[in-house]
Amino acid sequence: MILYDYWRSSSAWRVRIALHFKGIAFERRVVNLIKDGGEQHTDAFRALNPLGQVPVFVTQEKDGTRTITQSMAIIGYLEDTVPTPPLLPADPWLRARARQLAEIVNAGTQPLQNLTVLDHVQALGLDRDAWARHFIARGLAALEAASQETEAMYLVGDAPTIADLYLVPQLYNARRWKVDLAPYPTLVRVDAACGTLPAFVAAHPDAQSDARPAG
Amino acid sequence: MILYDYWRSSSAWRVRIALHFKGIAFERRVVNLIKDGGEQHTDAFRALNPLGQVPVFVTQEKDGTRTITQSMAIIGYLEDTVPTPPLLPADPWLRARARQLAEIVNAGTQPLQNLTVLDHVQALGLDRDAWARHFIARGLAALEAASQETEAMYLVGDAPTIADLYLVPQLYNARRWKVDLAPYPTLVRVDAACGTLPAFVAAHPDAQSDARPAG
Repeated sequence: MILYDYWRSSSAWRVRIALHFKGIAFERRVVNLIKDGGEQHTDAFRALNPLGQVPVFVTQEKDGTRTITQSMAIIGYLEDTVPTPPLLPADPWLRARARQLAEIVNAGTQPLQNLTVLDHVQALGLDRDAWARHFIARGLAALEAASQETEAMYLVGDAPTIADLYLVPQLYNARRWKVDLAPYPTLVRVDAACGTLPAFVAAHPDAQSDARPAG
Repeated sequence: MILYDYWRSSSAWRVRIALHFKGIAFERRVVNLIKDGGEQHTDAFRALNPLGQVPVFVTQEKDGTRTITQSMAIIGYLEDTVPTPPLLPADPWLRARARQLAEIVNAGTQPLQNLTVLDHVQALGLDRDAWARHFIARGLAALEAASQETEAMYLVGDAPTIADLYLVPQLYNARRWKVDLAPYPTLVRVDAACGTLPAFVAAHPDAQSDARPAG
């Protein structure tokens, strides 16, 4: 299995956590999103993912090599094919809540502050920092509120779920954009708890081969 | 079961299709997103969904009433609790592909052109039509390309899947914003095929009690 990846891509980071959490061996292929305008825009990479984004996951099916993009689809595939340890609770409503919290980040927050959108915002003459902060704060407020019914050691109960895989990279982005995290005590607490788990440690951007010094 | 809904919300529309497809009876409660600045901003509605968006789904669990937001989470719950007829293929990679295509809309396209974002774009002095067209065209191009491996009668094979639930409302939005659909022949063909199915007919905005005449 191959993961086309970039150390600071929050979408790819979620998949790295899932792979380490389930103990799945994978080969990491780095796509440098910054260098020379971005390797994700090459024809070779666009053939793997027309959206020009990491992650792209390559798996071996019985009839040959198959690719999957979109973090939710890749993580769903991992959950379907390697169910233990699970990233979704067994109870149907708790499963739905874990997915809901993850989607507040996946569809409600991160798409509005990813590199593609911020480049577009900047090209239109707007302040990309203000744009990013606005939508990150809005998303985290919704996530903090929606977590109150289920939060315990993690966002949904006492075992990590898919919700936590989406939280951790989003809080990292929030810190990069200097969003004030004081209004989100649950998110900050759960992020710290996740940060001690081996899968989250192994998947952290700073632990990747292509990591660059802060700055 | 209750669905907080608005006729023209593309996210709520996806859930309506799923409910009709699976033959699940539900009570529809209209949240007028336009009237008096939007009923979704009231305190009562924000208590149901802090993001102030439809759909909100209310279900009866054994220990009481439970809410779910985010179309993917609601549809996942329906698939888990009413598995037949299925909205995901049985094969793991095809399941992943159906989810991938749905997420290209859910996370890659619709969040960039929904009401909240376009209001923000307009408040910053930008052309909301040009913004919407840019991101819709980009998303549809990715969806058209990514569909080529699996398209048949529908986006993934010869039965409707979750991917088609996300396609149909997105093409409706594309037409509202006058996006040229000529580059997306697969999407246009599958949209027309879906339009003849009873579940898609029943879920269409124009069939809802709060529909308004075109214009």
